[in-house]
Amino acid sequence: MSEEFLKVAHAAREAAAELAPLPRAPKDRALRAIADALAAQAAQIVEANAKDVERAREQGTSEAMIDRLRLDVKRVEAIAEAVRQVADLPDPVGEVLRGSTLPNGLELRQLRVPLGVIGIIYEGRPNVTVDAAALCLKSGNAVLLRGSSSAYDSNTELVRIMQEALEGTEVPSGAVQLVPGQTRESVKELMRARGLVDVLIPRGGASLINSVVEESTVPVIETGVGNCHVYVDAEADLDLALDILVNSKAQRPSVCNAAETFLVHAGVAAEFLPKALARLAEEGVTVHGDERVAAHPGVVAATEDDFYAEYLSLDIAAAVVDSLEDAVAHIRKYGSGHTDAIVTRSQRAARRFVALVDSAAVAVNASTRFTDGGEFGFGAEIGISTQKLHARGPMGLPELTSTKWIYTGEGHLRTSEGTVISACQGGN
Amino acid sequence: MSEEFLKVAHAAREAAAELAPLPRAPKDRALRAIADALAAQAAQIVEANAKDVERAREQGTSEAMIDRLRLDVKRVEAIAEAVRQVADLPDPVGEVLRGSTLPNGLELRQLRVPLGVIGIIYEGRPNVTVDAAALCLKSGNAVLLRGSSSAYDSNTELVRIMQEALEGTEVPSGAVQLVPGQTRESVKELMRARGLVDVLIPRGGASLINSVVEESTVPVIETGVGNCHVYVDAEADLDLALDILVNSKAQRPSVCNAAETFLVHAGVAAEFLPKALARLAEEGVTVHGDERVAAHPGVVAATEDDFYAEYLSLDIAAAVVDSLEDAVAHIRKYGSGHTDAIVTRSQRAARRFVALVDSAAVAVNASTRFTDGGEFGFGAEIGISTQKLHARGPMGLPELTSTKWIYTGEGHLRTSEGTVISACQGGN
Repeated sequence: MSEEFLKVAHAAREAAAELAPLPRAPKDRALRAIADALAAQAAQIVEANAKDVERAREQGTSEAMIDRLRLDVKRVEAIAEAVRQVADLPDPVGEVLRGSTLPNGLELRQLRVPLGVIGIIYEGRPNVTVDAAALCLKSGNAVLLRGSSSAYDSNTELVRIMQEALEGTEVPSGAVQLVPGQTRESVKELMRARGLVDVLIPRGGASLINSVVEESTVPVIETGVGNCHVYVDAEADLDLALDILVNSKAQRPSVCNAAETFLVHAGVAAEFLPKALARLAEEGVTVHGDERVAAHPGVVAATEDDFYAEYLSLDIAAAVVDSLEDAVAHIRKYGSGHTDAIVTRSQRAARRFVALVDSAAVAVNASTRFTDGGEFGFGAEIGISTQKLHARGPMGLPELTSTKWIYTGEGHLRTSEGTVISACQGGN
Repeated sequence: MSEEFLKVAHAAREAAAELAPLPRAPKDRALRAIADALAAQAAQIVEANAKDVERAREQGTSEAMIDRLRLDVKRVEAIAEAVRQVADLPDPVGEVLRGSTLPNGLELRQLRVPLGVIGIIYEGRPNVTVDAAALCLKSGNAVLLRGSSSAYDSNTELVRIMQEALEGTEVPSGAVQLVPGQTRESVKELMRARGLVDVLIPRGGASLINSVVEESTVPVIETGVGNCHVYVDAEADLDLALDILVNSKAQRPSVCNAAETFLVHAGVAAEFLPKALARLAEEGVTVHGDERVAAHPGVVAATEDDFYAEYLSLDIAAAVVDSLEDAVAHIRKYGSGHTDAIVTRSQRAARRFVALVDSAAVAVNASTRFTDGGEFGFGAEIGISTQKLHARGPMGLPELTSTKWIYTGEGHLRTSEGTVISACQGGN
């Protein structure tokens, strides 16, 4: 590993050890200092960001992408405000999750503790740099940030300001680090930093996430790939189904909890499909249908790839299924385990769908768009896990923690006959 | 991947989907059927085991290892009884972990669900084959077992009997699978089976665990490497410390929660060390000491490797430290994050040690030997996790589960202005 990388990784590790035992108040003070510093230095941030924007323009980046990249004073103020909101959230660290006095008198407690050093690899907007840092600090973790090279100047400036702001606080400034270099090599170093980094959270497209999972020796939490389904059951209220389908697909097509496929029971397909196709067409949505759907006008014939696709656009795949079980089998085969919805009046169908669909979230008679840390009341979200270990679904502050067992005795010894208390206790 | 491997992996995956929604009663019936079948066919198991024992003897295996491998009717009956005990444990699946009615009326629930397919790679005794299968089935998971090739005949027979026993039950017999082949290749296939296997749990020595972590694309839970420390504080009751040290080291030296290093504060070293060295010598323990410890007679000079070592034998490393903070720094550097103990009368020292030591378990005035699923009251244990993600410390049945979010509405749609309920609700 490069010396540059080792330097920031070790700095983060040392900071993590100092930060972990801090209670809530000094962490909140540090977050407010960061928010104030960001707001006060908005002009410098906008100036650094202008370099990223200029470079993007030279490289022929689309205006939509440039708008995602661009910061102005108002956006910087919103970023600072989001940090203040994180400061207002409860601290997960120190929460007693389980506890009892064991039969032998040992007092046993399981506490939430920080994970240590969290590596975040992300594409997209520079606000993630600050959001992720704030969530990590609040949960007592140091953070190694590896953002998009397209936002490197903005990220460098944001991290510099955060580090300077921490210098006047009890939180060590080393707790926020930008991974040096903009090369692919720096991502690799992060992925191989087992022992220095406790967990990696990749945030971005499927190819980024797959390459991290494939190559990383650091434990990974996969986030955000969403091939979400809406299943319209034989016993669905079809008008309700129509609203839920359209909302799930079209309310904000670019996000991971937008629907990418709908499945309709054969028993109601003849009635539902013409209405659904008309409504989706009104919304500008292109439907990629299997044979039975494509028999209707205006539908593009789907290939198998369409059923695997996370379009993130005004496209949706569609198929007719002969049973709830076939819908579940389709979702198990093609889905990404993010969010899948059923629309039905039947209690039995809802119960079966919920039991059989193996996804982070299952929605009944509701839009898939509600799978979100904000909607769930978490106050903030670092991403949506689509894996089964550690965290599944929207990840808030508790998902950025581990646990520690503590047991306290008075000379408890274990023997083959059971616990013995040492006879040697002096006065305590 | 070999066809043979894919066949068992797909069979496990299908079985997992059938098994996951089953409630407790049919799972318990299946476990009792397994226990009965094992007890009834003890003679066949002993016969298959005799082949393993004979092969081991031909290969010049030590008698101690052969004893670990050997099964007799009494041992088989104990294995069957352990399965009945798992049946008696509460079912973690379906537990509601969090739940609320959101401000918009959505009913939100987070439920425990099975992980899916669990791969277990293990060395050692054939009883693990049955123990691991029972814990996985109880928690609604299918299991792919890859035991030691030295126990292949025993494991094959045990799995055959378990599968046959399941055939008369509601649990699909495919839920218990032995990974075919005894080659290193079959371990590799398990490690690359992302999408087919949800989690891998390696149980064995450090080299096995490291190679799995290094090569696996399937998420891994590391278990069981224990370089546990006993720190004797400046304010320790020294007689109590002596008992705790000797118990932690010598009560059962071959297990992961046995102490492998002790650290003594410089302020009490002159008084403590002569007593400790005498007691450890009585117990047959060799002490590998740093310079200050090795100044005493009968101590072997320690190399740096000694402080990293998991001896699992009647050896212990020892060092004198100048402060609690130095003890913590030593543990952070050399420890494995399993269990570390402090002996002290000081409330402040205990509080600091607990806060600063970053391990799965921290013991205060108690032997390290208590870090154990049985002692913690879990009823059963699949291993002791020394990693921070998902599970940390002794893993019982809840640690073999994931979670699923379920939200139920009545036509809930998300808009930029907040939640809207579809106007189209018909009669339910």
